[in-house]
Amino acid sequence: MKMEAFTVENVPLIRAGDDIAAIICENAQLMDNDIIIIASTIVAKAEGRMFRLEDIVPGDEAGRIAHEHQTDPRFVQAVLDRSRDVLVEWPIFLVETKHGHVCIKAGIDASNVDSGFLADLPEDPDLSAANIGKRMEEITGRKISVIITDTNGRAFKIGQTGVAVGLYRIHPIRNWKGKKDLFGNILQITEESIADEIAGAANLLMGEGDGGYPVVVLRGLEMRSDDPASVKEMYRESGQDIIRKGLRSLNHP
Amino acid sequence: MKMEAFTVENVPLIRAGDDIAAIICENAQLMDNDIIIIASTIVAKAEGRMFRLEDIVPGDEAGRIAHEHQTDPRFVQAVLDRSRDVLVEWPIFLVETKHGHVCIKAGIDASNVDSGFLADLPEDPDLSAANIGKRMEEITGRKISVIITDTNGRAFKIGQTGVAVGLYRIHPIRNWKGKKDLFGNILQITEESIADEIAGAANLLMGEGDGGYPVVVLRGLEMRSDDPASVKEMYRESGQDIIRKGLRSLNHP
Repeated sequence: MKMEAFTVENVPLIRAGDDIAAIICENAQLMDNDIIIIASTIVAKAEGRMFRLEDIVPGDEAGRIAHEHQTDPRFVQAVLDRSRDVLVEWPIFLVETKHGHVCIKAGIDASNVDSGFLADLPEDPDLSAANIGKRMEEITGRKISVIITDTNGRAFKIGQTGVAVGLYRIHPIRNWKGKKDLFGNILQITEESIADEIAGAANLLMGEGDGGYPVVVLRGLEMRSDDPASVKEMYRESGQDIIRKGLRSLNHP
Repeated sequence: MKMEAFTVENVPLIRAGDDIAAIICENAQLMDNDIIIIASTIVAKAEGRMFRLEDIVPGDEAGRIAHEHQTDPRFVQAVLDRSRDVLVEWPIFLVETKHGHVCIKAGIDASNVDSGFLADLPEDPDLSAANIGKRMEEITGRKISVIITDTNGRAFKIGQTGVAVGLYRIHPIRNWKGKKDLFGNILQITEESIADEIAGAANLLMGEGDGGYPVVVLRGLEMRSDDPASVKEMYRESGQDIIRKGLRSLNHP
Protein backbone atom coordinates (compact mmCIF):
# COMPACT_ATOMS: atom_id res chain seq x y z
CA MET A 1 0.00 0.00 0.00
CA LYS A 2 1.12 3.48 -0.78
CA MET A 3 -0.01 7.07 -0.33
CA GLU A 4 1.38 10.44 -1.22
CA ALA A 5 0.71 13.92 0.07
CA PHE A 6 1.62 17.25 -1.47
CA THR A 7 1.05 20.90 -0.72
CA VAL A 8 -1.04 23.00 -3.09
CA GLU A 9 1.28 25.72 -4.37
CA ASN A 10 0.40 29.33 -5.17
CA VAL A 11 -2.49 29.65 -2.71
CA PRO A 12 -2.64 33.44 -2.22
CA LEU A 13 -3.38 35.19 1.07
CA ILE A 14 -7.08 34.49 1.50
CA ARG A 15 -9.54 37.36 2.06
CA ALA A 16 -13.25 37.45 2.92
CA GLY A 17 -15.35 36.20 0.04
CA ASP A 18 -12.54 34.31 -1.70
CA ASP A 19 -13.58 31.05 -3.37
CA ILE A 20 -11.21 28.55 -1.72
CA ALA A 21 -12.56 25.64 -3.77
CA ALA A 22 -11.84 27.39 -7.06
CA ILE A 23 -8.38 28.44 -5.90
CA ILE A 24 -7.49 24.85 -4.96
CA CYS A 25 -8.83 23.44 -8.24
CA GLU A 26 -6.82 25.98 -10.25
CA ASN A 27 -3.59 25.00 -8.50
CA ALA A 28 -3.93 21.21 -8.18
CA GLN A 29 -5.08 18.44 -10.48
CA LEU A 30 -7.55 16.55 -8.26
CA MET A 31 -8.38 12.87 -8.70
CA ASP A 32 -11.14 10.60 -7.41
CA ASN A 33 -10.68 9.70 -3.73
CA ASP A 34 -8.29 12.57 -3.06
CA ILE A 35 -8.58 13.93 0.46
CA ILE A 36 -8.16 17.71 0.55
CA ILE A 37 -6.91 18.97 3.91
CA ILE A 38 -7.49 22.67 4.57
CA ALA A 39 -6.25 24.76 7.52
CA SER A 40 -9.19 26.27 9.41
CA THR A 41 -7.57 29.72 9.34
CA ILE A 42 -8.11 30.21 5.63
CA VAL A 43 -11.68 28.90 5.87
CA ALA A 44 -12.34 31.46 8.61
CA LYS A 45 -10.82 34.19 6.47
CA ALA A 46 -12.79 33.27 3.36
CA GLU A 47 -16.00 33.20 5.43
CA GLY A 48 -15.17 36.59 6.90
CA ARG A 49 -14.96 35.17 10.42
CA MET A 50 -12.37 37.66 11.57
CA PHE A 51 -12.98 39.95 14.51
CA ARG A 52 -11.24 42.66 16.51
CA LEU A 53 -10.66 42.74 20.24
CA GLU A 54 -11.65 46.39 20.36
CA ASP A 55 -15.23 45.47 19.43
CA ILE A 56 -15.68 43.26 22.50
CA VAL A 57 -17.03 44.31 25.92
CA PRO A 58 -15.88 41.80 28.57
CA GLY A 59 -18.18 40.66 31.39
CA ASP A 60 -17.34 39.76 35.01
CA GLU A 61 -16.44 36.11 34.35
CA ALA A 62 -14.08 37.15 31.56
CA GLY A 63 -12.48 39.68 33.89
CA ARG A 64 -11.89 37.07 36.58
CA ILE A 65 -10.37 34.48 34.21
CA ALA A 66 -8.28 37.12 32.43
CA HIS A 67 -6.85 38.17 35.79
CA GLU A 68 -5.70 34.56 36.48
CA HIS A 69 -3.99 34.42 33.09
CA GLN A 70 -2.71 38.00 33.09
CA THR A 71 -4.30 38.40 29.68
CA ASP A 72 -6.80 40.64 27.89
CA PRO A 73 -10.36 40.22 29.28
CA ARG A 74 -11.75 40.95 25.81
CA PHE A 75 -9.94 37.91 24.46
CA VAL A 76 -11.35 35.78 27.29
CA GLN A 77 -14.84 37.11 26.54
CA ALA A 78 -14.39 36.11 22.89
CA VAL A 79 -13.50 32.58 23.99
CA LEU A 80 -16.50 32.39 26.36
CA ASP A 81 -18.84 33.62 23.60
CA ARG A 82 -17.76 30.67 21.44
CA SER A 83 -17.92 28.01 24.17
CA ARG A 84 -20.61 25.93 25.79
CA ASP A 85 -18.42 24.59 28.60
CA VAL A 86 -15.24 25.66 30.39
CA LEU A 87 -13.28 22.51 31.32
CA VAL A 88 -10.24 24.19 32.85
CA GLU A 89 -9.83 27.89 33.69
CA TRP A 90 -6.23 27.81 34.80
CA PRO A 91 -3.29 27.08 34.19
CA ILE A 92 -4.66 26.36 30.72
CA PHE A 93 -7.92 27.79 29.37
CA LEU A 94 -9.58 24.68 27.98
CA VAL A 95 -13.13 24.87 26.64
CA GLU A 96 -15.67 22.96 24.60
CA THR A 97 -16.78 25.04 21.64
CA LYS A 98 -20.43 25.31 20.67
CA HIS A 99 -19.66 22.82 17.89
CA GLY A 100 -18.37 20.28 20.45
CA HIS A 101 -14.64 20.58 19.87
CA VAL A 102 -12.50 20.58 23.05
CA CYS A 103 -9.52 22.90 22.68
CA ILE A 104 -7.52 25.74 24.16
CA LYS A 105 -9.06 29.22 23.75
CA ALA A 106 -11.90 27.97 21.52
CA GLY A 107 -9.50 27.67 18.61
CA ILE A 108 -9.23 31.45 18.22
CA ASP A 109 -6.09 32.07 16.20
CA ALA A 110 -3.86 35.13 16.14
CA SER A 111 -1.30 33.58 13.79
CA ASN A 112 -1.28 34.22 10.05
CA VAL A 113 -3.95 36.93 10.30
CA ASP A 114 -3.73 40.70 9.88
CA SER A 115 -2.42 42.54 12.93
CA GLY A 116 -5.23 43.51 15.32
CA PHE A 117 -7.51 40.77 14.03
CA LEU A 118 -8.27 37.29 15.33
CA ALA A 119 -9.60 34.31 13.37
CA ASP A 120 -12.46 32.12 14.57
CA LEU A 121 -12.92 28.48 13.84
CA PRO A 122 -15.69 28.15 11.23
CA GLU A 123 -19.10 28.30 12.96
CA ASP A 124 -20.13 24.90 11.58
CA PRO A 125 -16.93 23.27 10.27
CA ASP A 126 -18.73 20.26 8.78
CA LEU A 127 -20.91 22.63 6.76
CA SER A 128 -17.87 24.63 5.65
CA ALA A 129 -16.15 21.40 4.58
CA ALA A 130 -19.26 20.31 2.67
CA ASN A 131 -19.58 23.67 0.93
CA ILE A 132 -15.97 23.63 -0.23
CA GLY A 133 -16.06 19.91 -1.07
CA LYS A 134 -19.24 20.06 -3.14
CA ARG A 135 -17.95 23.04 -5.06
CA MET A 136 -14.65 21.25 -5.82
CA GLU A 137 -16.64 18.23 -7.01
CA GLU A 138 -18.73 20.47 -9.29
CA ILE A 139 -15.66 22.15 -10.76
CA THR A 140 -13.63 18.97 -11.31
CA GLY A 141 -16.22 16.21 -11.69
CA ARG A 142 -14.11 14.19 -9.21
CA LYS A 143 -15.38 12.52 -6.04
CA ILE A 144 -13.24 13.85 -3.21
CA SER A 145 -13.24 14.27 0.58
CA VAL A 146 -12.40 17.33 2.67
CA ILE A 147 -10.93 17.66 6.15
CA ILE A 148 -10.69 21.09 7.82
CA THR A 149 -7.91 21.08 10.42
CA ASP A 150 -6.70 22.93 13.46
CA THR A 151 -3.70 22.30 15.72
CA ASN A 152 -4.27 21.01 19.27
CA GLY A 153 -2.26 19.95 22.28
CA ARG A 154 -2.94 16.68 24.05
CA ALA A 155 -2.84 15.03 27.47
CA PHE A 156 0.43 13.80 29.04
CA LYS A 157 2.70 14.98 26.23
CA ILE A 158 4.07 18.30 25.06
CA GLY A 159 3.57 19.41 21.48
CA GLN A 160 0.61 19.93 19.21
CA THR A 161 -0.65 17.85 16.32
CA GLY A 162 -2.97 18.55 13.43
CA VAL A 163 -6.55 17.48 14.19
CA ALA A 164 -9.76 17.37 12.18
CA VAL A 165 -12.44 19.92 13.09
CA GLY A 166 -14.75 19.54 10.07
CA LEU A 167 -15.35 16.81 7.47
CA TYR A 168 -16.94 16.15 4.10
CA ARG A 169 -17.47 12.63 2.74
CA ILE A 170 -15.10 10.87 5.11
CA HIS A 171 -16.01 9.33 8.46
CA PRO A 172 -13.65 10.27 11.28
CA ILE A 173 -13.42 6.70 12.60
CA ARG A 174 -12.42 3.51 10.78
CA ASN A 175 -14.06 0.67 12.58
CA TRP A 176 -12.16 -2.59 13.01
CA LYS A 177 -14.86 -4.09 15.25
CA GLY A 178 -15.25 -7.81 14.76
CA LYS A 179 -12.19 -7.94 12.51
CA LYS A 180 -9.62 -10.60 13.23
CA ASP A 181 -5.91 -10.30 13.70
CA LEU A 182 -3.15 -12.30 12.05
CA PHE A 183 -3.84 -15.24 14.37
CA GLY A 184 -7.61 -15.20 14.09
CA ASN A 185 -8.24 -13.48 17.42
CA ILE A 186 -10.76 -10.63 17.68
CA LEU A 187 -8.92 -7.30 17.68
CA GLN A 188 -8.56 -5.24 20.85
CA ILE A 189 -8.16 -1.93 19.04
CA THR A 190 -11.41 -1.38 17.20
CA GLU A 191 -11.75 2.31 16.36
CA GLU A 192 -9.05 4.14 14.46
CA SER A 193 -9.28 7.91 14.24
CA ILE A 194 -8.33 8.23 10.60
CA ALA A 195 -9.46 11.87 10.35
CA ASP A 196 -7.01 12.99 13.03
CA GLU A 197 -4.26 10.79 11.60
CA ILE A 198 -4.78 12.40 8.19
CA ALA A 199 -4.87 15.89 9.73
CA GLY A 200 -1.58 15.13 11.50
CA ALA A 201 0.01 13.79 8.32
CA ALA A 202 -0.99 16.95 6.44
CA ASN A 203 0.35 19.12 9.24
CA LEU A 204 3.83 17.70 8.61
CA LEU A 205 3.75 19.48 5.24
CA MET A 206 1.68 22.55 6.17
CA GLY A 207 4.17 24.07 8.59
CA GLU A 208 3.15 26.83 10.93
CA GLY A 209 5.32 29.73 9.97
CA ASP A 210 5.69 32.17 7.12
CA GLY A 211 6.52 29.31 4.77
CA GLY A 212 3.15 27.79 5.58
CA TYR A 213 1.01 25.88 3.13
CA PRO A 214 -2.68 25.92 4.11
CA VAL A 215 -3.82 23.17 1.70
CA VAL A 216 -2.54 19.61 1.31
CA VAL A 217 -3.82 16.83 -0.96
CA LEU A 218 -3.53 13.24 0.27
CA ARG A 219 -3.78 10.61 -2.45
CA GLY A 220 -3.86 6.82 -2.36
CA LEU A 221 -6.27 6.05 0.48
CA GLU A 222 -9.74 4.85 -0.41
CA MET A 223 -11.67 6.33 2.48
CA ARG A 224 -14.39 8.36 0.81
CA SER A 225 -17.91 7.62 2.01
CA ASP A 226 -21.04 8.27 -0.02
CA ASP A 227 -23.13 9.02 3.04
CA PRO A 228 -22.92 12.21 5.06
CA ALA A 229 -20.21 12.32 7.70
CA SER A 230 -19.57 14.57 10.69
CA VAL A 231 -16.61 15.26 12.89
CA LYS A 232 -19.05 14.94 15.79
CA GLU A 233 -19.01 11.15 15.31
CA MET A 234 -15.70 11.15 17.17
CA TYR A 235 -16.60 13.50 20.02
CA ARG A 236 -16.96 11.50 23.19
CA GLU A 237 -20.16 12.06 25.16
CA SER A 238 -19.13 14.15 28.13
CA GLY A 239 -20.73 11.77 30.66
CA GLN A 240 -18.49 8.94 29.39
CA ASP A 241 -15.25 10.87 29.58
CA ILE A 242 -13.12 10.08 32.63
CA ILE A 243 -10.63 12.84 31.85
CA ARG A 244 -13.37 15.44 31.68
CA LYS A 245 -14.70 14.12 34.99
CA GLY A 246 -11.25 14.52 36.53
CA LEU A 247 -10.92 18.08 35.29
CA ARG A 248 -14.39 18.91 36.57
CA SER A 249 -13.45 17.68 40.03
CA LEU A 250 -10.58 20.20 40.03
CA ASN A 251 -12.94 23.06 39.30
CA HIS A 252 -15.56 21.88 41.79
CA PRO A 253 -13.75 19.91 44.48
CA MET B 1 6.42 20.02 -0.69
CA LYS B 2 5.70 16.38 -1.08
CA MET B 3 6.03 13.14 0.84
CA GLU B 4 5.15 9.54 0.18
CA ALA B 5 4.63 6.57 2.43
CA PHE B 6 4.53 2.91 1.55
CA THR B 7 4.26 -0.39 3.36
CA VAL B 8 7.14 -2.84 3.30
CA GLU B 9 5.81 -5.98 1.63
CA ASN B 10 6.69 -9.58 2.45
CA VAL B 11 7.52 -9.04 6.11
CA PRO B 12 7.06 -12.56 7.53
CA LEU B 13 5.55 -13.38 10.92
CA ILE B 14 8.31 -12.28 13.27
CA ARG B 15 9.70 -14.70 15.86
CA ALA B 16 12.14 -14.27 18.75
CA GLY B 17 15.65 -13.61 17.47
CA ASP B 18 14.59 -12.45 14.01
CA ASP B 19 16.68 -9.64 12.54
CA ILE B 20 14.02 -7.01 11.76
CA ALA B 21 16.56 -4.61 10.28
CA ALA B 22 17.79 -7.17 7.76
CA ILE B 23 14.24 -8.18 6.86
CA ILE B 24 13.29 -4.56 6.16
CA CYS B 25 16.42 -3.91 4.09
CA GLU B 26 15.77 -7.04 2.02
CA ASN B 27 12.24 -5.91 1.19
CA ALA B 28 12.63 -2.16 0.69
CA GLN B 29 15.13 0.05 -1.10
CA LEU B 30 15.95 2.60 1.59
CA MET B 31 17.20 6.11 0.83
CA ASP B 32 18.84 8.86 2.89
CA ASN B 33 16.37 10.63 5.22
CA ASP B 34 13.81 7.83 5.03
CA ILE B 35 11.85 7.42 8.24
CA ILE B 36 11.14 3.76 9.00
CA ILE B 37 8.04 3.29 11.15
CA ILE B 38 7.81 -0.08 12.92
CA ALA B 39 4.89 -1.45 14.96
CA SER B 40 5.99 -2.20 18.53
CA THR B 41 4.45 -5.67 18.37
CA ILE B 42 7.04 -7.03 15.97
CA VAL B 43 9.85 -5.42 17.96
CA ALA B 44 8.56 -7.15 21.09
CA LYS B 45 8.38 -10.43 19.21
CA ALA B 46 11.89 -10.17 17.79
CA GLU B 47 13.22 -9.32 21.26
CA GLY B 48 11.39 -12.30 22.72
CA ARG B 49 9.25 -10.08 24.95
CA MET B 50 6.27 -12.40 24.91
CA PHE B 51 4.81 -13.83 28.09
CA ARG B 52 2.00 -16.09 29.26
CA LEU B 53 -0.70 -15.28 31.78
CA GLU B 54 -0.30 -18.71 33.36
CA ASP B 55 3.20 -17.76 34.55
CA ILE B 56 1.93 -14.80 36.64
CA VAL B 57 0.89 -14.85 40.30
CA PRO B 58 -1.39 -11.87 41.01
CA GLY B 59 -1.14 -9.86 44.24
CA ASP B 60 -3.86 -8.16 46.29
CA GLU B 61 -3.88 -4.87 44.35
CA ALA B 62 -4.21 -6.75 41.07
CA GLY B 63 -7.07 -8.75 42.53
CA ARG B 64 -8.93 -5.61 43.59
CA ILE B 65 -8.51 -3.82 40.24
CA ALA B 66 -9.36 -6.98 38.27
CA HIS B 67 -12.58 -7.28 40.27
CA GLU B 68 -13.59 -3.72 39.23
CA HIS B 69 -12.94 -4.56 35.58
CA GLN B 70 -14.26 -8.13 35.72
CA THR B 71 -11.03 -9.24 34.15
CA ASP B 72 -8.17 -11.64 34.82
CA PRO B 73 -6.08 -10.60 37.88
CA ARG B 74 -2.97 -12.07 36.24
CA PHE B 75 -3.37 -9.60 33.37
CA VAL B 76 -3.72 -6.73 35.85
CA GLN B 77 -0.59 -7.93 37.68
CA ALA B 78 1.29 -7.90 34.38
CA VAL B 79 0.23 -4.28 33.82
CA LEU B 80 1.24 -3.28 37.37
CA ASP B 81 4.63 -4.96 36.94
CA ARG B 82 5.31 -2.74 33.93
CA SER B 83 4.05 0.53 35.45
CA ARG B 84 5.44 3.16 37.77
CA ASP B 85 2.12 4.97 38.28
CA VAL B 86 -1.58 4.13 38.02
CA LEU B 87 -3.42 7.25 36.79
CA VAL B 88 -6.90 5.76 36.57
CA GLU B 89 -8.05 2.38 37.89
CA TRP B 90 -11.58 2.43 36.58
CA PRO B 91 -13.53 2.73 34.19
CA ILE B 92 -10.30 2.68 32.20
CA PHE B 93 -7.02 1.23 33.44
CA LEU B 94 -4.59 4.02 32.59
CA VAL B 95 -0.97 3.78 33.70
CA GLU B 96 2.43 5.32 33.17
CA THR B 97 4.90 2.67 32.08
CA LYS B 98 8.36 2.46 33.58
CA HIS B 99 9.62 4.11 30.38
CA GLY B 100 7.29 7.10 30.94
CA HIS B 101 4.61 6.35 28.34
CA VAL B 102 1.03 6.96 29.51
CA CYS B 103 -1.35 4.41 28.04
CA ILE B 104 -4.06 1.88 28.69
CA LYS B 105 -2.90 -1.45 30.16
CA ALA B 106 0.82 -0.57 29.82
CA GLY B 107 0.63 -1.24 26.10
CA ILE B 108 0.34 -4.99 26.58
CA ASP B 109 -1.03 -6.35 23.33
CA ALA B 110 -3.02 -9.53 22.74
CA SER B 111 -3.54 -8.85 19.03
CA ASN B 112 -1.40 -10.39 16.31
CA VAL B 113 0.36 -12.72 18.75
CA ASP B 114 0.13 -16.49 19.24
CA SER B 115 -2.89 -17.62 21.26
CA GLY B 116 -2.16 -17.72 24.99
CA PHE B 117 0.66 -15.19 24.68
CA LEU B 118 0.79 -11.45 25.26
CA ALA B 119 3.27 -8.95 23.80
CA ASP B 120 5.03 -6.28 25.87
CA LEU B 121 6.17 -2.92 24.68
CA PRO B 122 9.95 -3.01 24.24
CA GLU B 123 11.65 -2.45 27.62
CA ASP B 124 13.58 0.58 26.34
CA PRO B 125 11.93 1.56 23.03
CA ASP B 126 14.52 4.25 22.21
CA LEU B 127 17.25 1.64 22.55
CA SER B 128 15.30 -0.82 20.40
CA ALA B 129 14.84 1.88 17.75
CA ALA B 130 18.55 2.71 17.87
CA ASN B 131 19.56 -0.94 17.56
CA ILE B 132 17.36 -1.48 14.52
CA GLY B 133 18.25 1.89 13.00
CA LYS B 134 22.01 1.49 13.35
CA ARG B 135 21.86 -1.97 11.84
CA MET B 136 19.83 -0.71 8.86
CA GLU B 137 22.38 2.07 8.38
CA GLU B 138 25.21 -0.49 8.44
CA ILE B 139 23.48 -2.73 5.91
CA THR B 140 22.44 0.02 3.49
CA GLY B 141 24.96 2.82 4.05
CA ARG B 142 21.98 5.19 4.19
CA LYS B 143 21.26 7.71 6.94
CA ILE B 144 17.76 6.95 8.18
CA SER B 145 15.49 7.52 11.18
CA VAL B 146 13.31 5.01 13.04
CA ILE B 147 10.04 5.44 14.93
CA ILE B 148 8.57 2.53 16.90
CA THR B 149 4.81 2.94 17.25
CA ASP B 150 1.88 1.83 19.32
CA THR B 151 -1.80 2.75 19.11
CA ASN B 152 -3.34 4.92 21.85
CA GLY B 153 -6.65 6.53 22.70
CA ARG B 154 -6.89 10.19 23.65
CA ALA B 155 -8.86 12.62 25.78
CA PHE B 156 -12.30 13.91 24.73
CA LYS B 157 -12.55 11.89 21.54
CA ILE B 158 -13.23 8.29 20.66
CA GLY B 159 -10.80 6.37 18.49
CA GLN B 160 -7.12 5.53 18.65
CA THR B 161 -4.23 6.94 16.66
CA GLY B 162 -0.72 5.73 15.99
CA VAL B 163 1.79 7.26 18.43
CA ALA B 164 5.56 7.13 18.77
CA VAL B 165 6.95 5.12 21.69
CA GLY B 166 10.62 4.93 20.65
CA LEU B 167 12.88 6.96 18.35
CA TYR B 168 16.21 6.88 16.54
CA ARG B 169 17.75 9.98 14.93
CA ILE B 170 14.58 12.07 14.90
CA HIS B 171 13.46 14.48 17.62
CA PRO B 172 9.82 14.08 18.62
CA ILE B 173 9.13 17.83 18.60
CA ARG B 174 9.67 20.37 15.82
CA ASN B 175 10.16 23.70 17.46
CA TRP B 176 8.66 26.80 15.85
CA LYS B 177 9.63 29.03 18.79
CA GLY B 178 10.53 32.52 17.70
CA LYS B 179 9.42 31.82 14.13
CA LYS B 180 7.15 34.36 12.52
CA ASP B 181 3.87 33.86 10.77
CA LEU B 182 2.80 35.14 7.35
CA PHE B 183 2.24 38.62 8.80
CA GLY B 184 5.43 38.81 10.84
CA ASN B 185 3.81 38.05 14.21
CA ILE B 186 5.45 35.59 16.60
CA LEU B 187 3.68 32.23 16.33
CA GLN B 188 1.33 31.00 19.06
CA ILE B 189 1.82 27.32 18.26
CA THR B 190 5.46 26.61 18.91
CA GLU B 191 5.92 22.89 19.38
CA GLU B 192 4.73 20.40 16.79
CA SER B 193 4.74 16.74 17.70
CA ILE B 194 6.11 15.44 14.43
CA ALA B 195 6.86 11.96 15.82
CA ASP B 196 3.22 11.35 16.69
CA GLU B 197 2.05 12.88 13.41
CA ILE B 198 4.36 10.52 11.53
CA ALA B 199 3.21 7.56 13.62
CA GLY B 200 -0.40 8.44 12.84
CA ALA B 201 0.32 8.81 9.13
CA ALA B 202 1.97 5.39 9.06
CA ASN B 203 -0.94 3.87 10.95
CA LEU B 204 -3.23 4.79 8.05
CA LEU B 205 -1.33 2.24 5.98
CA MET B 206 -0.47 -0.32 8.67
CA GLY B 207 -4.02 -1.40 9.42
CA GLU B 208 -4.85 -3.40 12.51
CA GLY B 209 -6.23 -6.65 11.22
CA ASP B 210 -5.05 -9.74 9.41
CA GLY B 211 -4.07 -7.63 6.42
CA GLY B 212 -1.75 -5.65 8.66
CA TYR B 213 1.58 -4.24 7.58
CA PRO B 214 3.96 -3.71 10.52
CA VAL B 215 6.53 -1.58 8.68
CA VAL B 216 6.02 1.65 6.73
CA VAL B 217 8.62 3.87 5.05
CA LEU B 218 7.97 7.62 4.93
CA ARG B 219 10.00 9.50 2.34
CA GLY B 220 10.33 13.18 1.49
CA LEU B 221 10.64 14.82 4.91
CA GLU B 222 14.06 16.06 5.99
CA MET B 223 13.74 15.52 9.71
CA ARG B 224 16.75 13.36 10.55
CA SER B 225 18.93 14.67 13.38
CA ASP B 226 22.57 13.79 13.85
CA ASP B 227 22.40 14.00 17.62
CA PRO B 228 20.75 11.42 19.84
CA ALA B 229 16.99 11.75 20.28
CA SER B 230 14.54 10.27 22.76
CA VAL B 231 10.79 9.90 22.86
CA LYS B 232 11.05 11.15 26.44
CA GLU B 233 11.64 14.67 25.10
CA MET B 234 7.88 14.87 24.57
CA TYR B 235 6.70 13.38 27.85
CA ARG B 236 5.28 16.15 30.00
CA GLU B 237 6.62 16.35 33.54
CA SER B 238 3.86 14.99 35.72
CA GLY B 239 3.84 18.05 38.01
CA GLN B 240 3.05 20.27 35.02
CA ASP B 241 0.17 18.20 33.71
CA ILE B 242 -3.27 19.55 34.59
CA ILE B 243 -5.06 16.48 33.21
CA ARG B 244 -2.96 14.17 35.35
CA LYS B 245 -3.74 16.37 38.35
CA GLY B 246 -7.45 16.08 37.59
CA LEU B 247 -7.28 12.30 37.33
CA ARG B 248 -5.32 12.11 40.57
CA SER B 249 -8.01 14.09 42.37
CA LEU B 250 -10.54 11.44 41.32
CA ASN B 251 -8.44 8.67 42.85
CA HIS B 252 -7.67 10.63 46.00
CA PRO B 253 -10.51 13.09 46.53
